[in-house]
Amino acid sequence: MDLYSGVLSKLIEEFASLPGIGQKTAQRLAFHMVNQPKEKVERFASVMMEAREKICYCKECFTLTDREICPICADEKRDHSTIMVVETTRDQAAYEKTGKYDGVYHVLHGAISPMLGIGPNDIRLKELIQRLEKDVDEVIIATNSTLEGETTAMYLSKLIKPTGIKCSRIASGVPVGGDLEYIDEVTLLRALEGRQEL
Amino acid sequence: MDLYSGVLSKLIEEFASLPGIGQKTAQRLAFHMVNQPKEKVERFASVMMEAREKICYCKECFTLTDREICPICADEKRDHSTIMVVETTRDQAAYEKTGKYDGVYHVLHGAISPMLGIGPNDIRLKELIQRLEKDVDEVIIATNSTLEGETTAMYLSKLIKPTGIKCSRIASGVPVGGDLEYIDEVTLLRALEGRQEL
Repeated sequence: MDLYSGVLSKLIEEFASLPGIGQKTAQRLAFHMVNQPKEKVERFASVMMEAREKICYCKECFTLTDREICPICADEKRDHSTIMVVETTRDQAAYEKTGKYDGVYHVLHGAISPMLGIGPNDIRLKELIQRLEKDVDEVIIATNSTLEGETTAMYLSKLIKPTGIKCSRIASGVPVGGDLEYIDEVTLLRALEGRQEL
Repeated sequence: MDLYSGVLSKLIEEFASLPGIGQKTAQRLAFHMVNQPKEKVERFASVMMEAREKICYCKECFTLTDREICPICADEKRDHSTIMVVETTRDQAAYEKTGKYDGVYHVLHGAISPMLGIGPNDIRLKELIQRLEKDVDEVIIATNSTLEGETTAMYLSKLIKPTGIKCSRIASGVPVGGDLEYIDEVTLLRALEGRQEL
């Protein structure tokens, strides 16, 4: 599209490269941007770079954070003997939002998917197993209720069982095929309550 | 939302401040961003600032461009005696895409709207009238077919008529490929009124 001047086309292209943003939306966003006060655009740009710069993995649970140890892992009031295993930081945030879970997390950053060629070594599984050497009472597997999530849960439970640590799976009150991130809090809590030992 | 670390929340907030981007989409975009290679994020940020910095109004037609005179106005092959009046640069781009219009444009950057308190002096109307002092044969009013667009068209035609310059309005009717059954009554009546002999 050379309908717009060079730098505007470039900005539209950048927006269109974002996931779920089509050409029309990208145009709308780009025009919005160039009509904003200069300070606002600069703040956006700098926040973007700062986030990319500072965000790293928590050394404990591997969630995305801007500290060495994330606030949840650093919180001594939380129950460090219960670990909830989730696929992504967004899934973690979904459970955090319920405000009822006071254990800690482990973020796998993905799920086992033979289809996509993602094996156990491609996600943060090894790191979870290492954490189990510490004082852990229960591992709650809260991977998504998808094929990949279930596969990961099965694989994980088989790894954990020999250690004697209690291992549970959130209940399938979560609709099959659903993504944790988009599910209402009541359902999330129902699933937590109904967890079953594997 | 303090579910995420400070800088991540800030980035989500920035994305959520964009028009049409909700909280969930903003989260998705922010996570996408921090997972991108650093160069990509830097390029996005710099394109954003560069666009905001360089984009200005064409001195002739007031479209958004990065030059003093936009490529269309600077193009001597185009018919400078025909001016199409549009509300936004995006509307201009829509007509440019057809590839069949070879006149020039005038971008009003809005439309008269008593409801929103936008009067004739708040859009680039004066500048259009000034352009009419040059050698202009026809003004084609291509504002949107909304209440505001129609109001602007009416106002404009009254201004132009005394000058003796030909003044036309793009046709309003059933869109090509449109099914009569799904088209609103006002459009149907407009199409009937505007019927042309075959």
